[in-house]
Amino acid sequence: MTYGLGLLLDEGVVLITDSRSNAGVDHIATVNKLNLFQLAGSHVLALASSGNLATTQAVVTLLNQRLGQVGNPSNLFGAKTMFDAARMVGSVLREVMAHDANFVQGYGDPSASLLLGGQIADEPHRLFLIYSAGNFIEAGPDTPYLQIGELKYGKPILDRVMDRSLTLANATKIGLLSFDATVRSNLSVAPPLEIFCYRAGTLSPVVPYRVENNDPYYASLREGYARAIQDAASALPPPPFVQA
Amino acid sequence: MTYGLGLLLDEGVVLITDSRSNAGVDHIATVNKLNLFQLAGSHVLALASSGNLATTQAVVTLLNQRLGQVGNPSNLFGAKTMFDAARMVGSVLREVMAHDANFVQGYGDPSASLLLGGQIADEPHRLFLIYSAGNFIEAGPDTPYLQIGELKYGKPILDRVMDRSLTLANATKIGLLSFDATVRSNLSVAPPLEIFCYRAGTLSPVVPYRVENNDPYYASLREGYARAIQDAASALPPPPFVQA
Repeated sequence: MTYGLGLLLDEGVVLITDSRSNAGVDHIATVNKLNLFQLAGSHVLALASSGNLATTQAVVTLLNQRLGQVGNPSNLFGAKTMFDAARMVGSVLREVMAHDANFVQGYGDPSASLLLGGQIADEPHRLFLIYSAGNFIEAGPDTPYLQIGELKYGKPILDRVMDRSLTLANATKIGLLSFDATVRSNLSVAPPLEIFCYRAGTLSPVVPYRVENNDPYYASLREGYARAIQDAASALPPPPFVQA
Repeated sequence: MTYGLGLLLDEGVVLITDSRSNAGVDHIATVNKLNLFQLAGSHVLALASSGNLATTQAVVTLLNQRLGQVGNPSNLFGAKTMFDAARMVGSVLREVMAHDANFVQGYGDPSASLLLGGQIADEPHRLFLIYSAGNFIEAGPDTPYLQIGELKYGKPILDRVMDRSLTLANATKIGLLSFDATVRSNLSVAPPLEIFCYRAGTLSPVVPYRVENNDPYYASLREGYARAIQDAASALPPPPFVQA
């Protein structure tokens, strides 16, 4: 399983993925699920993937092979808008599914879903969730976050705290808390976490940050939050209807 | 969907269910998902159900019809142990599935799962999760809680705070926080919540407590916890690797 989270903020876009690949508990590996397509000054795109690893790796590989090929309809650097870029990703995903899905179905689920975030030229920064069918939805003013993969454990904290107006840094912090909840409750989601943190308008290539399990900031965040939750839970009064 | 939670504590057993039944968002009703089978001095059993409502209602109805019928193999008041009672519930569930499952499959999922908690005579109090196949698992020292239905949203708070040694009242409080997380994140889980709270050794019939959406305690608990989470999240330092 995978957990992938995209945050659309006034200040920019954040994408976070874990790096755990598993096909059963005895086949666990660390794989990259965050891929960047960046051209300084015009294209800063990040793609987070979940689902069948063969499918998502094929999508990313095809997108990379075609990157910069003038006239190629899947050349992300030829996309004039983020919507066009999302269509390109969706159509490459359809191409891979058409190539493999029927053969894979007997062994497991070939499907995949992806988050695409970033900015192209003068357009505002945008965030999309691309389904296995190749269609997609976009984050808007009332949906500051989109999730893929193992999303439920990490949703309550987002529903409580995430807001478009948070700073990039604070939103990343809340995103990491959402990952912490997921990692605690599901063995198949695990660090290292990959973080893409883009400030809108800069159009400067982003170097993703990698949070290992023993990252001192992540460790202190997890401990501080765990303690705060325990304190908060024990400070609240018990139900009056339960006899002591 | 449904969320059902069972807590096995040193002090006793707690079962909590929501009351939302839905078959699509335009077919929503309030139904009872917590059923009690109680005989003062010997049997205090509570059954929480999730899954196909026709299936679970049939199981509960058959168990009620047979209650007290001496010699009937599904007479819960004839069960000498909680294990025997869990077997009875499992076999009635198999009976209902055998009667209906093939006919229902074309329209939807006929399956169901159940939590059975309580105490019989001199046995310790126990808690079981009964699967659709009629087999079951039991909560033990390292598993103070079992869940059925829409369980993921409410799991992180349990993983962080739930402990066998909590008092009945405090464990019920944590259980309600787990429901709050679920209700916030999933439309198909909603109050009223039904709470069975049994103190081990009493063998006295329990009157379940019903928490409506506007219950003052539940409202203050939700508000207090929401505020504490927000305060905790904003008090924690932002990641040093995100440039301000």
